[in-house]
Amino acid sequence: MTASTDRLDVVGIGNAMVDVLTHENDEFVAAQGLVKGSMTLIDADRALELYDQMGTGIEVSGGSAANTIAGVASLGGTGAYIGKVRDDQLGDIFAHDMRSIGVEFDVPRSTEGSPTGRCLILVTPDGERTLSTFLGASTGLTTDDIDGSLVHRARILYLEGYLWDPPAAKAAMREAASHAVGDDQRVSLTLSDSFCVDRHRESFLDLIDTSIDVLFANEDEITSLLEVDSVEAAIEGIAGRTEICVVTQGAAGSSIVTADGVVKVFAEVVDHVVDTTGAGDLYASGFLLALARGHDLETCGRLGSIAAAEIISHIGPRPEVNLAELVASKFG
Amino acid sequence: MTASTDRLDVVGIGNAMVDVLTHENDEFVAAQGLVKGSMTLIDADRALELYDQMGTGIEVSGGSAANTIAGVASLGGTGAYIGKVRDDQLGDIFAHDMRSIGVEFDVPRSTEGSPTGRCLILVTPDGERTLSTFLGASTGLTTDDIDGSLVHRARILYLEGYLWDPPAAKAAMREAASHAVGDDQRVSLTLSDSFCVDRHRESFLDLIDTSIDVLFANEDEITSLLEVDSVEAAIEGIAGRTEICVVTQGAAGSSIVTADGVVKVFAEVVDHVVDTTGAGDLYASGFLLALARGHDLETCGRLGSIAAAEIISHIGPRPEVNLAELVASKFG
Repeated sequence: MTASTDRLDVVGIGNAMVDVLTHENDEFVAAQGLVKGSMTLIDADRALELYDQMGTGIEVSGGSAANTIAGVASLGGTGAYIGKVRDDQLGDIFAHDMRSIGVEFDVPRSTEGSPTGRCLILVTPDGERTLSTFLGASTGLTTDDIDGSLVHRARILYLEGYLWDPPAAKAAMREAASHAVGDDQRVSLTLSDSFCVDRHRESFLDLIDTSIDVLFANEDEITSLLEVDSVEAAIEGIAGRTEICVVTQGAAGSSIVTADGVVKVFAEVVDHVVDTTGAGDLYASGFLLALARGHDLETCGRLGSIAAAEIISHIGPRPEVNLAELVASKFG
Repeated sequence: MTASTDRLDVVGIGNAMVDVLTHENDEFVAAQGLVKGSMTLIDADRALELYDQMGTGIEVSGGSAANTIAGVASLGGTGAYIGKVRDDQLGDIFAHDMRSIGVEFDVPRSTEGSPTGRCLILVTPDGERTLSTFLGASTGLTTDDIDGSLVHRARILYLEGYLWDPPAAKAAMREAASHAVGDDQRVSLTLSDSFCVDRHRESFLDLIDTSIDVLFANEDEITSLLEVDSVEAAIEGIAGRTEICVVTQGAAGSSIVTADGVVKVFAEVVDHVVDTTGAGDLYASGFLLALARGHDLETCGRLGSIAAAEIISHIGPRPEVNLAELVASKFG
C-alpha cells in the first residue's frame, strides 16, 4: 500500500485525551480549589485523587483539536489527526472513535510510560465546564511523530495551544508548521485557554507573527494575549496581524477579524445548553472546513455556529448526529 | 476495621460491565445480523469486530444488577454489589462509578485472563437498544467471591438472570441465595432477556419455585418462561408461584402479581425517550427499595416507574440526577 496523496481539508495536532464527565455543583468545584470555566494541568496522583471525589462518570473521546477534526469529518470533510495515546484501553477508545468517524489517525502508540491522557470535566448546572487535565501519554509526542507527507496534504494545518505545554510536543508543532508552507496551505492556531496564554504569551505572539494565518480565541484569551482590557481593543490590536482572527463570544456569536474589518456572525439559538464542552472546538470544525473549501467568511462563521450549537445541546464533545445532514437542513 | 453489620436494603449479584453506546440506524443493526431489542452473547473476537464497525461511542458503567444497585443508592437506599472486573482501566471505571454513588463493592479483581466485560449497545432512533455482550472478566465470579456476612445484611438479595450463563457464576448465585434465608430476607430474580429465559427455562423455574420471593420480567420474558401466548395467561400462571411477580410493560406501565390479585401501575410520562437502556434495571431499583422499606405494592411500583422514567430520558443506564430528590419532588 502506498501512502495517499489526496488533499485533506484539515490536519490537526493536539493532546489526545479521553474525557471523563461528571455533573457536579458549584460548591464541589470550589471545594476542589478549581476556577470554574478554566483548565488546570494536573499530575497522575492528583488525577486519581480528584477522580476519587467525582461522581459517576461518562467517558468519551476528547482532546481539543481531536474534537475539531472529528467535527470536520462529521461535516463531510476530510481530516487527519496527530496526537499520542498509549497501548491501553483508553487509547483503544480514542483510536476507535477517530477512525470510526473517518479521520486518519496513524501515530504509533507509546508502549511504556504514562497511560493515555484524560481530562476530568466537572459540568455544573449552568452547562459550564471546569477541566483538570492529566496529559499522560500525550506529552510523548515528538518530532518523530510528524509525518511531513501527511502535513503536505493539508489545506489547513490546525495547532492546539494546549500542546504548547509539553516541550517535545511544542517542537513537534513547530516541525509540522515547517511542512505546511505551500502557497495553498494555511496554518491555524487555537489559543485554547487564557491560563495557557498566560504561560506562553511571548512564544504565541512570535508564532502568530511568523507562521499563523488563522487564529481562534475567545474573549478571555485574546484580551490576555494582547494584555488589553476590552475585546474592542483586542480586535483592533490583532487586525492584520494574522490573515484571519476569529473571536468566539459564546451566546453573542463571533467576530471574524481581518485587515479589512470585522464580520459579525450570530450564534445559533440553542433551547437548552447541556454541556459547553467542545463548543469552541466544533466552531473551528465548521469554520475551517468552509474556509478549506473556499467559502466566504460569513459562511465559515455560520457553519462554525451550527456545529457549536449541536455540541452544546448534549453531553460530550463529539457530534451525536451527522453534521453534514444537519447543515444541509439549515441551508435548505 | 471490623466488617459492618448494618442492614443493607439491596445486595445485587450480576455481570459487571462497561457499556459502549453508539447511535446507529435500523439498517446497521440488521446488517450486523442482530435482532433489535435483544441481547446476544459474543466472544472477544466478535466484540473487536463489531466495535470496529460501530460509530463514535460513549462509555458508561453498566451491568443490569449493577445499574439497579446504583439506582437504589441514588434513591437514598443502601446497597452492595457482587460482580467481577479485571485490574484494567475499564475495571477502574466500573469500580469508581459504584463507589462514587455509595455502593459497597469489594469483590477482588481478577489479575489475569479476560479484560473487564463490555456490552456494545446500538441505540436506534426510536430509543430502543440492541445489546452484544462480551462477558470478559465477569465470568470469573465464583463461590469464593460470595461474602456470606454481606448477604446476611441484605433485606433483599437481587439476582441477575444474565449471570445464569457462566456456570461458575450460576453456582455463586446459588451460594448467595443459600445465605439469604433469614425470616426478614427476600430473594429476587430478574429474568433479564427472553433469549436468556429460552436458554435456562427449566432451571429458572426450579429456582423460582424453591428460592425466589420477588420475580421481575417483561412481557416477552414471562410468556417465554411459561411458554404461553398471552401476558394474561402468563399472569394467571405465575400468580402465587412467587410471593410477588412484577411484569413490566414499557409505556403501558407494570402489573404486580400476587396470590391475591394484580395491582396495575401506570408508567410515568416521558416527553422524549432517548435511550431505554436500564429502564428495567431502574424500575427494579425503585420497587425493591420501597419493598425493603415496607411500603405497599402500589408505592413500590410507583417508585419503580419514576426511576425508570428518569433513565430513559437520557443516554446511559445510571441516574444523571439525585433520584431521592426527584422522588421527593413527585411525592411532594
